[in-house]
Amino acid sequence: MFIQTIDILGTIAFAISGVLVAMNKKMDAFGVFIIAFVTAVGGGTLRDVLIGATPVFWMKDMTFISVISLAALFAVLFRNYLKHLRRSLFLFDTIGIGLYTVIGIEKGLNAELHPIICIILGTMSACFGGVIRDILCNEIPVIFRKEVYATACIVGGLSYFLMLEFLENRNYLFLIAGAVVITIRLLAVIFKLKLPSLYKHEV
Amino acid sequence: MFIQTIDILGTIAFAISGVLVAMNKKMDAFGVFIIAFVTAVGGGTLRDVLIGATPVFWMKDMTFISVISLAALFAVLFRNYLKHLRRSLFLFDTIGIGLYTVIGIEKGLNAELHPIICIILGTMSACFGGVIRDILCNEIPVIFRKEVYATACIVGGLSYFLMLEFLENRNYLFLIAGAVVITIRLLAVIFKLKLPSLYKHEV
Amino acid sequence: MFIQTIDILGTIAFAISGVLVAMNKKMDAFGVFIIAFVTAVGGGTLRDVLIGATPVFWMKDMTFISVISLAALFAVLFRNYLKHLRRSLFLFDTIGIGLYTVIGIEKGLNAELHPIICIILGTMSACFGGVIRDILCNEIPVIFRKEVYATACIVGGLSYFLMLEFLENRNYLFLIAGAVVITIRLLAVIFKLKLPSLYKHEV
Repeated sequence: MFIQTIDILGTIAFAISGVLVAMNKKMDAFGVFIIAFVTAVGGGTLRDVLIGATPVFWMKDMTFISVISLAALFAVLFRNYLKHLRRSLFLFDTIGIGLYTVIGIEKGLNAELHPIICIILGTMSACFGGVIRDILCNEIPVIFRKEVYATACIVGGLSYFLMLEFLENRNYLFLIAGAVVITIRLLAVIFKLKLPSLYKHEV
Repeated sequence: MFIQTIDILGTIAFAISGVLVAMNKKMDAFGVFIIAFVTAVGGGTLRDVLIGATPVFWMKDMTFISVISLAALFAVLFRNYLKHLRRSLFLFDTIGIGLYTVIGIEKGLNAELHPIICIILGTMSACFGGVIRDILCNEIPVIFRKEVYATACIVGGLSYFLMLEFLENRNYLFLIAGAVVITIRLLAVIFKLKLPSLYKHEV
Repeated sequence: MFIQTIDILGTIAFAISGVLVAMNKKMDAFGVFIIAFVTAVGGGTLRDVLIGATPVFWMKDMTFISVISLAALFAVLFRNYLKHLRRSLFLFDTIGIGLYTVIGIEKGLNAELHPIICIILGTMSACFGGVIRDILCNEIPVIFRKEVYATACIVGGLSYFLMLEFLENRNYLFLIAGAVVITIRLLAVIFKLKLPSLYKHEV
């Protein structure tokens, strides 16, 4: 119940971030909705397709489509006021990636895949919605260029498997790993940390 | 038989539209063929992958590859005359999206998915070949920015499920829903209708 | 054993080519790694998804992730010296596409698909990693615009099925078809062959 509420908050945050990017690209109502949808479910969809868990998750539970539709409608109607919600949206998004990471890991474990693959699946669930959003909007994906975003998911995933040795209760593992993702992401934004660019300087 | 002929006309129209876009991007012969192919089968391929109907449809019936190859060859050879065929091509394309929409819906029904998911699958079958074409050509997908295109598919899909209450014969449903898509698309182009842009005007 | 070594050399070459493209786009460390990974496994992943061979190949054999990680690390550390290795990298890449083509064909045969589909799967395995790399970097895919690259894979694939009539030993088929791909690619680069552009000159 608690986890589901959080999951929905994350989905809402992702959908709204899609609406904002799409509106700045002068898309029409259909385009805006598609980008909102893809941002929210794209990562999990790719994960499900790659492990063969089809039909993909949002085809089997209508909650996602309903929530995303409402969030997109809300974002479109109140688009001029959303800037006042920036901090809440950032918080939802951060909680969302924490949760999506752990959900991806658990899906990988259920498919009996190697821990490293599970961490990749978790990171993919959390980050690739944004990547597909940026590709559809004809941008180089933002997570390839700046900010500690995927890195937070990877470290959170590593922490999950490190703690697996010591903790038996999966619910605790779930919460702690999610918290690690969220903490790293928050610290990175507060202290403006970023990964080094590897631009090749020609001499 | 009748439906198959229409299906092939739609495939031809999609393939030719791909050739035209690719040639304007100065692609070589291989690139032109790939774009033609992707435009024609991309939507249905995505649909099949998401519901797990693999190997995807064009791997199991060689008609598609043959027809697309011939259409691409024709379009390349007669590229200077295609502008005289613009009206026929538009008509084929319109019939094509009507048909692809209903085929997608029926695939969703066969997989026992929710009506809303079926409508999404129908719209995806009809529209996402063009989206993938535009991404490969490094453009923001045209259907996100203008024209009533996907909307026609969605309304056609809704009409399918509204009529499901009253009609038992699936063939009639198929034809009527397809006709709804085609009619809306034609009316939109004739009267130059378009969805409102949601561009965020900063004050 | 021999084939596995070659396979790994091809994977390394693909990963390094990804690193080079990503660094020129000023991506951060995470982006560079993702592009390296996608370039190396993207084609085979698309192939596996389309035929339904999931979880995809690199989730079931950890060699790929290890090799790609090491190659990406190497490429990043020695990025200023890689230009001296250009010839070796080109050779690895060429051997890689030869091998990937034949692996794709064999996967198609195992799924009992039509020879033409098998050739498409082989070409896809060899070429689409580079296509996805270019899309993520916001470029029109290079293989759509120049060089005999995919064509070499297609001709190699055709030779496989032509020889199938005469040769029973699959290992020989494998080696000869791979050699055809490599030879055509080498000749094309040495003699600067390219496919005709189909750019539409308006009169």
